[in-house]
Amino acid sequence: MPIAVRKIDRTQQPLAAEFAELGVATVHEAQGRKGLLDHCLRPIYRPVSVAGTAVTCEVAPGDNWMIHVAVELCEEGDVLVVTPTSNCQDGYFGDLLATSLQARGVKGLVINAGVRDIATLTEMQFPVWSAAVCAQGTVKETLANVNTTIVCAGQRITPGDLVVADDDGVVIVRKDEASTVLEKAKQRVANEEEKRARFESGELGLDVYDMRDRLAAKGLRYVDTED
Amino acid sequence: MPIAVRKIDRTQQPLAAEFAELGVATVHEAQGRKGLLDHCLRPIYRPVSVAGTAVTCEVAPGDNWMIHVAVELCEEGDVLVVTPTSNCQDGYFGDLLATSLQARGVKGLVINAGVRDIATLTEMQFPVWSAAVCAQGTVKETLANVNTTIVCAGQRITPGDLVVADDDGVVIVRKDEASTVLEKAKQRVANEEEKRARFESGELGLDVYDMRDRLAAKGLRYVDTED
Amino acid sequence: MPIAVRKIDRTQQPLAAEFAELGVATVHEAQGRKGLLDHCLRPIYRPVSVAGTAVTCEVAPGDNWMIHVAVELCEEGDVLVVTPTSNCQDGYFGDLLATSLQARGVKGLVINAGVRDIATLTEMQFPVWSAAVCAQGTVKETLANVNTTIVCAGQRITPGDLVVADDDGVVIVRKDEASTVLEKAKQRVANEEEKRARFESGELGLDVYDMRDRLAAKGLRYVDTED
Amino acid sequence: MPIAVRKIDRTQQPLAAEFAELGVATVHEAQGRKGLLDHCLRPIYRPVSVAGTAVTCEVAPGDNWMIHVAVELCEEGDVLVVTPTSNCQDGYFGDLLATSLQARGVKGLVINAGVRDIATLTEMQFPVWSAAVCAQGTVKETLANVNTTIVCAGQRITPGDLVVADDDGVVIVRKDEASTVLEKAKQRVANEEEKRARFESGELGLDVYDMRDRLAAKGLRYVDTED
Amino acid sequence: MPIAVRKIDRTQQPLAAEFAELGVATVHEAQGRKGLLDHCLRPIYRPVSVAGTAVTCEVAPGDNWMIHVAVELCEEGDVLVVTPTSNCQDGYFGDLLATSLQARGVKGLVINAGVRDIATLTEMQFPVWSAAVCAQGTVKETLANVNTTIVCAGQRITPGDLVVADDDGVVIVRKDEASTVLEKAKQRVANEEEKRARFESGELGLDVYDMRDRLAAKGLRYVDTED
Amino acid sequence: MPIAVRKIDRTQQPLAAEFAELGVATVHEAQGRKGLLDHCLRPIYRPVSVAGTAVTCEVAPGDNWMIHVAVELCEEGDVLVVTPTSNCQDGYFGDLLATSLQARGVKGLVINAGVRDIATLTEMQFPVWSAAVCAQGTVKETLANVNTTIVCAGQRITPGDLVVADDDGVVIVRKDEASTVLEKAKQRVANEEEKRARFESGELGLDVYDMRDRLAAKGLRYVDTED
Repeated sequence: MPIAVRKIDRTQQPLAAEFAELGVATVHEAQGRKGLLDHCLRPIYRPVSVAGTAVTCEVAPGDNWMIHVAVELCEEGDVLVVTPTSNCQDGYFGDLLATSLQARGVKGLVINAGVRDIATLTEMQFPVWSAAVCAQGTVKETLANVNTTIVCAGQRITPGDLVVADDDGVVIVRKDEASTVLEKAKQRVANEEEKRARFESGELGLDVYDMRDRLAAKGLRYVDTED
Repeated sequence: MPIAVRKIDRTQQPLAAEFAELGVATVHEAQGRKGLLDHCLRPIYRPVSVAGTAVTCEVAPGDNWMIHVAVELCEEGDVLVVTPTSNCQDGYFGDLLATSLQARGVKGLVINAGVRDIATLTEMQFPVWSAAVCAQGTVKETLANVNTTIVCAGQRITPGDLVVADDDGVVIVRKDEASTVLEKAKQRVANEEEKRARFESGELGLDVYDMRDRLAAKGLRYVDTED
Repeated sequence: MPIAVRKIDRTQQPLAAEFAELGVATVHEAQGRKGLLDHCLRPIYRPVSVAGTAVTCEVAPGDNWMIHVAVELCEEGDVLVVTPTSNCQDGYFGDLLATSLQARGVKGLVINAGVRDIATLTEMQFPVWSAAVCAQGTVKETLANVNTTIVCAGQRITPGDLVVADDDGVVIVRKDEASTVLEKAKQRVANEEEKRARFESGELGLDVYDMRDRLAAKGLRYVDTED
Repeated sequence: MPIAVRKIDRTQQPLAAEFAELGVATVHEAQGRKGLLDHCLRPIYRPVSVAGTAVTCEVAPGDNWMIHVAVELCEEGDVLVVTPTSNCQDGYFGDLLATSLQARGVKGLVINAGVRDIATLTEMQFPVWSAAVCAQGTVKETLANVNTTIVCAGQRITPGDLVVADDDGVVIVRKDEASTVLEKAKQRVANEEEKRARFESGELGLDVYDMRDRLAAKGLRYVDTED
Repeated sequence: MPIAVRKIDRTQQPLAAEFAELGVATVHEAQGRKGLLDHCLRPIYRPVSVAGTAVTCEVAPGDNWMIHVAVELCEEGDVLVVTPTSNCQDGYFGDLLATSLQARGVKGLVINAGVRDIATLTEMQFPVWSAAVCAQGTVKETLANVNTTIVCAGQRITPGDLVVADDDGVVIVRKDEASTVLEKAKQRVANEEEKRARFESGELGLDVYDMRDRLAAKGLRYVDTED
Repeated sequence: MPIAVRKIDRTQQPLAAEFAELGVATVHEAQGRKGLLDHCLRPIYRPVSVAGTAVTCEVAPGDNWMIHVAVELCEEGDVLVVTPTSNCQDGYFGDLLATSLQARGVKGLVINAGVRDIATLTEMQFPVWSAAVCAQGTVKETLANVNTTIVCAGQRITPGDLVVADDDGVVIVRKDEASTVLEKAKQRVANEEEKRARFESGELGLDVYDMRDRLAAKGLRYVDTED
């Protein structure tokens, strides 16, 4: 039988706040290139960048009932993550649900399905990453789990995990790895700043990353013309 | 043999004007969730919202000849709806055709195929919903029907039906149902305004829609932890 | 064994500069509707329009090593064109590589794969046409060819060919045809201006293009009602 | 409110029987290249060929309840045509429903969604054309219309229309056009037999269809080498 | 750093053997409609049905090195489950790897990517479920994890879980639920046999499942004609 | 203006005959993993394997006129390769054209579009690799090139190149590389036979390919349990 889990172990909010400035690509790299949701999930407006703690929600195809259950379990700083139990691109979510989430301090929605009212959502500046924009409405007939471990867009997500999302997509950081990943991501940003300066001054990646010998060793042959 | 139908029975324009402010999701709901075109049709710029009376046009794959025939049959307040007789994403429509339609007071284009010149179309603020952006040109060799009942992006459309389109997509309202749907849509908007205020004040959908008993009756179990 | 070709025969830069103002649809038409890359390649921001000379680069799936080799071979006015040796939508390219290319005067990137850091790329106004936005990183392990003739998104591209790209997509002009195509494209623009004025004044395509007799000859039948 | 229509006007069964031998491509040509369902609908086994009268059935996404309502309205010689009210590829149909339909003399199923138990359906030789094979089950919660005019896979279908389906796909013949189309299709078959003999003997389409002058008039140029 | 896990806790083989006869749809239903892999995974030949214990393997895009590592960790009765760390449809697997797996008593392969040599795999009767058939070869350069918990085609899979696969697709049964699910699946088969007999005799689902009252209560209206 | 090229330089037929036994995956590997057409091209029946010399043919979307021109230019041992000038999945080819090609000794068809009459094509054992099966007919109105260098499904093909196709897909061998590739492919087959025997006897790829040291050097860590 479906369950709704009331108490989840959230990543600490101060950590979440720091992730918001790092960006998805940096975080994804810093944690060893894991946790990235399928790139079919796209933001409904740009630019946008948020980080928050996951409240997870399964929904039946064409049925958004459990989103209402999930809203009550959301707290300030959360990101709601919704996944259908089978593929569906209906418009599960619109401006009224967004109003409700925004009133609770929820930072955004990640949904492997469709959303609607995107003109209003954009005006409200309520961030959404979705697989589709679709005005097709949904029913309220079938139960599913809220705040259990789910798979969404190819990634396993445990309630309380950190969700980082921006123009590039959405990445999940496991709550027990958040502080370690944060440190590595900050180092990466610092390192990239130094590299950016070198690139701006005209240095080449071949030299910045010391690639020439290895290219030659692998057999790359420079020629003057194709044949 | 292909025909071009000169006289069609249009939904009254004052009705169309009122629909323009309601939005696709609201109208779709108000008429019982029917008439929505496939969500692969997307606007070339946002935000955008129009409503108008359908002039329908079939085209052969890679051939936009009949669009020229359709233009002559368009009147002030129409929306041109184009569907290829087999799947094709070529660029059937560009800025010259848009100039011609705009000169006639046509409010926009809905096409289950590709369009081009979208930078100019955006500058002109001529609204287009299409399945693709594609610069591939088309020929003018093969006839097809204009102003007959068609299927476009999954929906049957009769000339004169109302086309409502915005950031969320495109919905069709049958002309004989337009005034009824308009009333229901207005009621829905009023009802949503009242609900929005409740959500803004922090009330939950579970209470606004009185869902708790039914969730319990279906068997939803609240637990403190997943296991 | 993979090769990197140092010397390529580029289309003359003054020609490239003139193409930048013409647009993809016009150039595609002017050269007889050939050379258009698949429309799955979309710009990461709009409006945008560039033209430049192609430096070509193959990459292994999930491996962006050769892009670093290609950067060194790019000159002022080039457009880097990257194609994976099998389908892959990983994020091959981000803001550091863009910084390096921009420092060399490269005008943009065309890639039949994914890119990341698109918020920064947009701020930098570094134009990119890609098949996807995806934060997934790539490795540097496998060689491939740089500056050889490639197929990218359905078109054969020889290094030095002209790449013209805008909101509508990307088209290739063969370097030995560039001056001829430029002339035809300019004539086309002039001709379109004259037509635009006629359309604005309300003239119909049926008359502007003198289509009525041919439509009748093919058998189009005008009727007052569908049946 | 949803309705189930008891009495429909069926194409005469003897006509249906004759169509079964003609094949989809022939019938589609004979009626002027209309009525073809999207080619994403594929048979679950091959070779296969049926023709029968359409009983139509809408279903909600992830919900096959109305198929049970439709079964009762099926008669000997029918083909059940099912379309979801929004895109869904769940497994709406399996061997038990097929047993029930087969017991009533139904000739096959056409469904713009998924089916399951295809090993058993193949053993039973119950023909199915579907958009997917998918074991995902469905619920029984939401009503929809049975035996009303629907759009399925891009075509409008009225209950009682003729459904012709084989290895090439599915085509619909309007009931009031069935006898005319049958005549044309038979002529087409006869004509093709004669042509086949000419092709077998080595004659060319260029001569059989007398194309050479028209190719030359359009400007085709024969050359000995490409340049 | 990537790891290869030597010891995994496998579902008992006698259980696996019994599942082989039940089929994917039945097992999926029996465990509450969870665990089904995306239906894009299709068998390379039909009919086919296997069940075995999962050995899991991640691979980099375009790189099948870790499959060789996984082979050594496979035992009699296993099914190898392979997932790329980003989308890739290259041909990771062919007849030599199949020969190696078959020599070890492995029952089949499930891979969310491409395979090749399918004519030989079919002759060998080595079952494969894949997302594509593609001859594109892969390199051996990049490490990834073997026998860790993975997500493959939308489902979380822990090494030792039961994999059941047939013409309908692939479903995962958690090892700690296998015996319970087996019981329920057997009951379901028995129950279906009884229902099949009733359907064969012409009884309707409306009566077998006692649906008429609930349909009326929800508001289904039977009418004689559409309007 | 479109041209039809009469004289092309064909790969020697005896070479073609030998390739027929080698298979696509082997040939693709032997020539350095190039020349593989997109795997969306699939054979209409299996098993199947052919090799022949390419006659190339462009077609307009929805227009198969030029196939008739190409037939006349085909000789014994050729494979006809057809590519639309923009994406189209209509049924360009059916049993009459196949009869004509078979009468001329043509070995098969490769087409990046749709075909129809596949039941008859299968009976005739006329091999076809296509992007779709679709009964939609085509017109004969627009010219295109025959026997010029084309891009089809991602690969450049020059008339007379060798086309090798089987259950795994389609690969092109440049005519000037055919004899070299044939030698390498034969060596590869011999080498694979020796390896197959070792795999059958239970040897592991880790040892056959001597991978253990390199895996360790890259950092693969064997552990007994996941954590």
